[in-house]
Amino acid sequence: MPATHAARRDLLRARLGELDAPAALVTRLVNVRYLTGFTGSNAALLVAADDADDGEGADVLATDGRYTTQSAQQAPDLPRLIDRRLVPTLAARAARAGLRRLAYESHQVTVDGLRMLTEAAPELELVSLRSAIEELRSVKDEGEIDLLRQACAIADRALAELIAAGGIRSGRSELQIARDLDSRMLDLGAEAVSFATIVASGPHSAIPHHAPTGRGIEPGDFVKLDFGAACAGYHSDMTRTIAFGQPAAWQREVYGLVADAQRIGREALVVGVECAAVDAAVRDRITADGHGEHYIHGLGHGVGLEIHEAPLLAKGATDRLRDRMPVTVEPGVYLEGRGGVRIEDTLVVRATGPELLTMTTKDLCIL
Amino acid sequence: MPATHAARRDLLRARLGELDAPAALVTRLVNVRYLTGFTGSNAALLVAADDADDGEGADVLATDGRYTTQSAQQAPDLPRLIDRRLVPTLAARAARAGLRRLAYESHQVTVDGLRMLTEAAPELELVSLRSAIEELRSVKDEGEIDLLRQACAIADRALAELIAAGGIRSGRSELQIARDLDSRMLDLGAEAVSFATIVASGPHSAIPHHAPTGRGIEPGDFVKLDFGAACAGYHSDMTRTIAFGQPAAWQREVYGLVADAQRIGREALVVGVECAAVDAAVRDRITADGHGEHYIHGLGHGVGLEIHEAPLLAKGATDRLRDRMPVTVEPGVYLEGRGGVRIEDTLVVRATGPELLTMTTKDLCIL
Repeated sequence: MPATHAARRDLLRARLGELDAPAALVTRLVNVRYLTGFTGSNAALLVAADDADDGEGADVLATDGRYTTQSAQQAPDLPRLIDRRLVPTLAARAARAGLRRLAYESHQVTVDGLRMLTEAAPELELVSLRSAIEELRSVKDEGEIDLLRQACAIADRALAELIAAGGIRSGRSELQIARDLDSRMLDLGAEAVSFATIVASGPHSAIPHHAPTGRGIEPGDFVKLDFGAACAGYHSDMTRTIAFGQPAAWQREVYGLVADAQRIGREALVVGVECAAVDAAVRDRITADGHGEHYIHGLGHGVGLEIHEAPLLAKGATDRLRDRMPVTVEPGVYLEGRGGVRIEDTLVVRATGPELLTMTTKDLCIL
Repeated sequence: MPATHAARRDLLRARLGELDAPAALVTRLVNVRYLTGFTGSNAALLVAADDADDGEGADVLATDGRYTTQSAQQAPDLPRLIDRRLVPTLAARAARAGLRRLAYESHQVTVDGLRMLTEAAPELELVSLRSAIEELRSVKDEGEIDLLRQACAIADRALAELIAAGGIRSGRSELQIARDLDSRMLDLGAEAVSFATIVASGPHSAIPHHAPTGRGIEPGDFVKLDFGAACAGYHSDMTRTIAFGQPAAWQREVYGLVADAQRIGREALVVGVECAAVDAAVRDRITADGHGEHYIHGLGHGVGLEIHEAPLLAKGATDRLRDRMPVTVEPGVYLEGRGGVRIEDTLVVRATGPELLTMTTKDLCIL
C-alpha cells in the first residue's frame, strides 16, 4: 500500500509542474487519505515537486498527538510532523525550506483559513491547486474498483436476504426496514453504511431524500430503498423501488419509464462522452413521456472514498467520462402525494463498455 | 417550533446591529438548521436586520428541488427559494434589495466560495459574521437540554444492558461489542449513533481515538468505550473504561488518577470561569502524578447539534463558561503498549452547579 500512495503523490507532482508550484499543501482530509493512507480525523500534507529534497522541502504528513501511533502505522513511508496547528506549521516549514510558491486547495480552505496561512508564511505566493486531486481520484485503479465491487456485493446480498427473510412486510415501519438492512450489511462485513439509509414508502417515496419514519408499509405502496455499504473507505450506492402489493396501472407506467430511462443512462456510459450528454439522454426520455418536471435532480455522480465525488452527471457538467471512472446512474420520477420511483446502479466506465457493480435485478419486484 | 427558530433569528438580528450589517448570509448547514429547523443536506439562509421588510430584503431560506416538500414542512414560517445555486442567488437577491453590506461566515465559506459570492453581487461589501451563531448555539434552551438528557439516558441504558446481558466477555471482539452497543442505542430510540463508537481493548486502549478491530478482549485488558446517541439532532457523548479481569496495581493507580482528575474537572464547571482554567485544573492534577505527557488532548468540548462544538475546554481557550452550556469533561492517561483510561461525562453548566447528564457510575467497573 505505501507504494500505491507514493505513486499517487507522484501523479500530483506532475500536476505541480504544470502549475509551476514547487509544493502543494493538501488540507482536504479525504485527499490526504488518498495520498497517504492515513485515516485519522485531523491531518494535512505537504507534497513537494522535488521529492529528492531530504530537508524541510520534502513530503511530510502533519497530524496531532492523538494520532502519533496510527499515522506511523498507516503512513510508514512518510516523515511525520506532530503539531496541533497543522496548516500554519506546514506553511512556515515550506517557507523556511525556501519555497516561494505554494499550491493550496482553494475549494476547501476557508477565508479565515487563508488568512492564517498568509500570516504564518507571508513570503509564500499562494496559487490554487483547484480540484487536481479530486480529478486524479475520479479515475480508480483496479484495487479501488475491487473494494467498490465488494461494497456493492454486500449491498446486493443484504437486500436479497432482507427480502428472502420477509423483512419487507405489511405494517413494518420504514425505520425497522432500514435498520434491518443496515444490520445485514454490517453482518456481511461492511465497515459502515455508506450514508443514512433511505426507506421511503407510499407517498414518502415521492420525496427524493426521505428520512425513514415510523410509517408502516401498506399494500399499494412503492417502497424505495437507497443504501450502500463501505469497504476500506469505498462506498457503494444503489436504489431499488419495490411494489408492495399488486401495482396499479400508474405505478407500472412510472416504473417502466424510469427503468427504460435508467437503461439509456447506463448504455450512454462511453469513454470520451461529456457527462452532460449522459444526463441529457436520460432527461430527454423522461421529458418525452411528460414527466420532465417530476425528475428534479441530476443523473448521477462519481463514487469512491466519498459517496458523492467527481464526476457529476448533470446539466452543464463539462467533464468527459474516462476509463475506470465509477459512477452512479439514478434517474427518478416523483409524483407528490402519490409516490415515486428511483432506480440507481453503481457502474464503472470502461473502454470495453460499462461494468455493472450493483447486480440486483431491475425488473419490477412485487412483494 | 417555528417560534423557537424565529426567536433564534431575532437573537442573530441583534448581533447584526453590532456588526452594522443589514443582513447575514448563513451557509453552515448546522447553523441553518438551528435558525430554521430545516434538516436537509443543502441549504443557505438570509437573515435580514430589518425583518419588517416584506420584499427581497426579508429572511429567506434557500434549498434545492429535492427539498421542496421537506423545507415547506420544517420551516413553514419562512419564505423559501428553490434554486440549485443557493449562495450566489441569495447574494444577488440581497443586492437587488438594496443592501450594501452583508455579513457572511468566513470560517465556513471557502476561498472559491467567496469569489463566487463576490462575482454574484460585486456591489456588496462583505464582512465576517465570525462565529456569532456558534456562540449563540453554545448556550442551550431547556428544550435542547432535554433532548441532550434523553440522548444521554439512552447511552446510559444501552451500556447497562450491554453489561447485564454479558455483552463484554472473553474473546468477544471490539467490533462485536461496538455493534452490540450501537444496536441497543437504536433499539432504545436513538435516531442515530453520535459518532463511530470506539471500543478499544488492552494495548488499543492507549490509542485515544481507536477504531474497533477484530481483537478479542482478554483478562487483564482495559476496555475503553466512547459512544453516544443522537435524539432529534442532539448528541450525547460518554466514555467509560472497564477493567476486564482483576486489575493490576498500575491499572488501579491510573484509573484512580483519571477519576480524580475528572472529578476536579466537573467541580470546576462554574459560571464565569475561563475554559482554559478548567482544563488547567485537571492537567495540573495529572501532571502532579507524573502523567502530564500521557494526557495528550484537551479536556472537553461543547455538545449539541454537533458532537464537537463551542466552547472548547483546552489550553488557550479564552471563552468563559455560561449558564446552560452543555460540555464534556474527558481527561485521559494513555500508556503506549499497555493501556489507557479515559472517563468522560456530558454535563450542563448551571448557575446552581453542574448538572450531570450521563449517569453511569464512574467507580471502577471490574468484569
